[in-house]
Amino acid sequence: MSMTKSFIPKTINHDLQKERLASTFDVEEFAAWWQGGEQKLKTKREIERALFADLDDGYGINHEYMSHEDLYNSAVKKVAEATPKLKALQQKMNPGGKDIWPGGLLSVHAHGLFPENHPLATHISMFVDVVKGQGTPEQVEKWGKLAENCNIIGTYAQTELAHGTNVRGIETRADYDIRAGEFVLNTPNLEAYKWWPGGMGHTANHAMVVAQLYISGKHKGIQMFIVPLRDADTHMPLPGVDVGEVGKKLGMAAVNLGFLGLKNVRIPRTNMLMKYAKVDRDGTFTASPASRVNYLTMVYTRCLIVNLNSTLLLQAATIATRYSAVRRQSPIEPNEPEPQIIDHVTQRLKLFPEIATGMAYHLAAEHMWELYNQTVLDANNGKFDRLPDMHILSCALKVLCTTDGCAGIERLRLSTGGHGYHIAANLSNIYGNAVAAYTYEGENTVLLLQIGRALVKAWASYKQAETPSSSYAYFETSMRLKEFPKWDNSWQCIVRALQYTAAHKTRIAFENLSQRIAAGQSQAVAANNTGIELTRAAELHGRQFVCQTFVEQITGPKAQQRSAALNSALENVVELFLVQTVLNNLSDILRFINLTDADLRSLQQRLELSLEKFRPNAVAICDGFDFHDRVLNSVLGSYDGNVYPRLFDAAKRSTMNQRPVQKSFETYLKPLMKASL
Amino acid sequence: MSMTKSFIPKTINHDLQKERLASTFDVEEFAAWWQGGEQKLKTKREIERALFADLDDGYGINHEYMSHEDLYNSAVKKVAEATPKLKALQQKMNPGGKDIWPGGLLSVHAHGLFPENHPLATHISMFVDVVKGQGTPEQVEKWGKLAENCNIIGTYAQTELAHGTNVRGIETRADYDIRAGEFVLNTPNLEAYKWWPGGMGHTANHAMVVAQLYISGKHKGIQMFIVPLRDADTHMPLPGVDVGEVGKKLGMAAVNLGFLGLKNVRIPRTNMLMKYAKVDRDGTFTASPASRVNYLTMVYTRCLIVNLNSTLLLQAATIATRYSAVRRQSPIEPNEPEPQIIDHVTQRLKLFPEIATGMAYHLAAEHMWELYNQTVLDANNGKFDRLPDMHILSCALKVLCTTDGCAGIERLRLSTGGHGYHIAANLSNIYGNAVAAYTYEGENTVLLLQIGRALVKAWASYKQAETPSSSYAYFETSMRLKEFPKWDNSWQCIVRALQYTAAHKTRIAFENLSQRIAAGQSQAVAANNTGIELTRAAELHGRQFVCQTFVEQITGPKAQQRSAALNSALENVVELFLVQTVLNNLSDILRFINLTDADLRSLQQRLELSLEKFRPNAVAICDGFDFHDRVLNSVLGSYDGNVYPRLFDAAKRSTMNQRPVQKSFETYLKPLMKASL
Repeated sequence: MSMTKSFIPKTINHDLQKERLASTFDVEEFAAWWQGGEQKLKTKREIERALFADLDDGYGINHEYMSHEDLYNSAVKKVAEATPKLKALQQKMNPGGKDIWPGGLLSVHAHGLFPENHPLATHISMFVDVVKGQGTPEQVEKWGKLAENCNIIGTYAQTELAHGTNVRGIETRADYDIRAGEFVLNTPNLEAYKWWPGGMGHTANHAMVVAQLYISGKHKGIQMFIVPLRDADTHMPLPGVDVGEVGKKLGMAAVNLGFLGLKNVRIPRTNMLMKYAKVDRDGTFTASPASRVNYLTMVYTRCLIVNLNSTLLLQAATIATRYSAVRRQSPIEPNEPEPQIIDHVTQRLKLFPEIATGMAYHLAAEHMWELYNQTVLDANNGKFDRLPDMHILSCALKVLCTTDGCAGIERLRLSTGGHGYHIAANLSNIYGNAVAAYTYEGENTVLLLQIGRALVKAWASYKQAETPSSSYAYFETSMRLKEFPKWDNSWQCIVRALQYTAAHKTRIAFENLSQRIAAGQSQAVAANNTGIELTRAAELHGRQFVCQTFVEQITGPKAQQRSAALNSALENVVELFLVQTVLNNLSDILRFINLTDADLRSLQQRLELSLEKFRPNAVAICDGFDFHDRVLNSVLGSYDGNVYPRLFDAAKRSTMNQRPVQKSFETYLKPLMKASL
Repeated sequence: MSMTKSFIPKTINHDLQKERLASTFDVEEFAAWWQGGEQKLKTKREIERALFADLDDGYGINHEYMSHEDLYNSAVKKVAEATPKLKALQQKMNPGGKDIWPGGLLSVHAHGLFPENHPLATHISMFVDVVKGQGTPEQVEKWGKLAENCNIIGTYAQTELAHGTNVRGIETRADYDIRAGEFVLNTPNLEAYKWWPGGMGHTANHAMVVAQLYISGKHKGIQMFIVPLRDADTHMPLPGVDVGEVGKKLGMAAVNLGFLGLKNVRIPRTNMLMKYAKVDRDGTFTASPASRVNYLTMVYTRCLIVNLNSTLLLQAATIATRYSAVRRQSPIEPNEPEPQIIDHVTQRLKLFPEIATGMAYHLAAEHMWELYNQTVLDANNGKFDRLPDMHILSCALKVLCTTDGCAGIERLRLSTGGHGYHIAANLSNIYGNAVAAYTYEGENTVLLLQIGRALVKAWASYKQAETPSSSYAYFETSMRLKEFPKWDNSWQCIVRALQYTAAHKTRIAFENLSQRIAAGQSQAVAANNTGIELTRAAELHGRQFVCQTFVEQITGPKAQQRSAALNSALENVVELFLVQTVLNNLSDILRFINLTDADLRSLQQRLELSLEKFRPNAVAICDGFDFHDRVLNSVLGSYDGNVYPRLFDAAKRSTMNQRPVQKSFETYLKPLMKASL
């Protein structure tokens, strides 16, 4: 395919330029704050320049026109070509670090390098970490180094065809053969086939297999085993290994998710990860001492998800906002020129709350990282008391960020009208990447139920006059009130209202649960029957946390490091987020808090006013996230705003447009047209 | 690719069998009712047997693994192969009719024949109709027959790169050359390129081009022109025609959406459709007498969209419900076996309301068709007074059905957990087909604003003591009340509450609009600033209509034709739908209606109870929609419930699994793995 002609001007769209001139704060100040400092911003840009400078024009889209198989092979090629670049950059910018290699395979840069994702993601993000976190020093020495160097490529095989959420139900088993000193692994039926591991299809030659351990026929719980899958030289599947890819999914085209069946596959005893649980040569089993460490890992992973998904939401918001500043349609005054669509008030409502939401979750995650680091320090000193609350909050944050974020990405896509339907807008791809998180690392409803059960448990303690831990302190402050005080429109009032509502929703869930138990239902059945109210209380618990954190992050001590101009713009983002959160949850709030008609009209006015104040800064705020054009990979969202030339350029890149007549014309279409009825 | 081994048992999943035995009504009675009678059900099944019997096992999925170009060519092949089958069936079952050929290219059967959609859809659904509806008798004779026979293939080219919603802003022009008696067509700039027409890419050889007509430099409004695009024999683009496809989209993979640039393309004067507006040989222009007929066309198209999108929602609901009856996960009682996930209450909430929603819209559309037919009769007698209300209602129905339906399809997909992420679940494909309707035939927000403006206009009339037309009669009945009467939990109470809320939301939108105008804003600017409240009032106007219609369709005179057992099951569907609608709109309802805590608890109980009563009939109701397995095209939703074998079968069909080692291993992966850092 020759693509000599470029349709894209070198100039910047005039409307976008105008937006940038009109913003009320300095974008560079925003960008430096957002990245955590000027130096980090500078480094980020330097990395991006180095990684993206030499990519072809069609790099971000050509894979869309390939067959599934060609797309995979092209993705492996991309990884292989990016690897030396990443390694060299690591060496140059931070020798001995891991932030660029292998970090660049997972960071936001990866969105630009591998918009279709890539098959080494699970190896880097899980296999290496699990070996290092759960292996003995010898195992870390042996397998960890090989894995870090990519001399072996692994994957993490836990979920099975018939079991995901309920890990305890998995059926893959590892039987210890005492005579041989080996484990014998089997997936006893089709339902037990491992399903979904990233890179397992045709890429990994090892898997971390999660299986039920049996010694002399006795069950010893779930353990992890390093299982070689493919020959190191020929890459052919080893005997007893039935491995392949699960097929195409709605997103993550190149992740090469796989299935795995095992039939009497033997591995040495030392391939079981034994940092905690152990099997001696003679079959003696030592159980793992503590599971609390696992909680920390889960908190860590969920913080990563919130980082990723809030970033994806902000990418989508950037694309849609820039497009809305460039697109002109439908006169407001009948005989006037068509306005930028960002001037239709309903369009603002589609864009700006999503920007605010993305920022709120991003900052909530930042706060969570601080808590996490503190908790790790405590844990190292044997203090684990923060852990349960942290775990619940991280679950709530993961659920809300993925739920709100995915819905927001899709709303943003729809806000761009028809053009958002084109893959070159990249919004459907962003959605495909984001929405998988709804299910993985704890399906969202399952997590909400966990949170809900923790809430009613905390409520029961509170009712027994125990002092609730800090996460649930609002139970006490809320219930102390006879009724909610007069609405005063302050941010504190809004946060308190959400807490008051969350407390009362917890109370009702607790009451309904108790009534069911009193009526003879078991605890478990009653919890199932109260499921809807438990999830709703859980959601509100999360929302009050996100709102409170957002207010603190913007108005707290760090505000002094920012200019007044920037703070003013940020405060309006908080205002919009809080007002929208109240309006979106009115059905619960109005049940417990008596807002007058004047209060409600004033909330509506605040919504409209904050959208109005957001208007001149919308493009600048998105610029401040500093997404590289390669990372956005969107014809609608590029920095230069050349939307139509880029759409046309993308169309011309379709492989079908490389020939004027398709081969089916002569063979099928023409005969159809010449046939008379 | 040889696929000799089949992994799929011939038996039916035991849990699904159990569900079917436990239902409280006769599925065949439901199915006959749903299809409009036993004979129609019989015919439908006969057609499906004939169309689907000889399709390969992999027919519904193989295209997913092809390159974009191969997929297109394979879709043309599918159309060419289906055509003689459809024609023969039409001849056999209903000679002279059009329901099977070409109807089968668009009906629900097409979902089974062409899950990736096909490039003749726009030709059949629009080109042929527009020629016949807007052409002179001579034009219908000449072009209509050629088009109906598929001797020519056309498309409908209205939307441009920079103009969709605001049709008046399109820039393609047709200048009449009096000397030659020809029109000269031009897209004067890139923004004026036609964009999105179905089949335009490489399939159509004609386009119905919508353009601004100029005669002697004077603008004569928007007209339609038949423009040949490609040579009838070689299919090569004609001189001055720049045609191609726009590229890949998130759905509708094989529709071959195209772009079109025109440079001094000349067509005979008689290629302008002249049933209404006319251009004589000497350039004399006669304007179209009436635009009211266009309204009827729009109502017609929107009813079709509601039919299609409610059907797609019910397909998704069938897939997710059957899967939820087969999938077992997460014990409710800790030490009991894992239940069918349909027994988790939160799962029921994800499934059953979507079934109810799909049925409500389906029946609302049925009611709308009756109104439509009545309106056509009236129009033929010169009576047009129903038309404006019909138009607004059809807009509301289109918006709500596509908005609720798409959100529902995605919720259903997410309810199936990870497996819904696989394309073989077909849920993402269904979503891709459904969500395009959010934008086409009037972008949803634009339509809501239209409805909102109609509401405040009707409100103004009502305030001037004019009797509102029947659509708005609830303004009067609602405002007559000082306050809403005591909540009595009846269906009528719910419908009245929605009407009361809709009326008050209209009142508030009207008041805010008036205040803004009084403060000096123009009507247009004030309407833009009131946009959020206008859209919300519009939504409620639609909701009260759907609820009222659903109640009438189930409890009205037709109920007598159904058994008591079926009616009882259907009444519970209405109950669930009404209660859910109230709960989903509480934030507005509670503003105007004082529901006590007891009322709210009772609504929650009704929700839980109706979910409970729905449980034994859920699978049977879905069976009653009588979707053929080919139409569902889903490994999760097939009638036999062999979910896991079908997932495995689908995985094994991936082209990548036809070879154990991919070619990138030797060239890229192995070198990467052998490199030492």
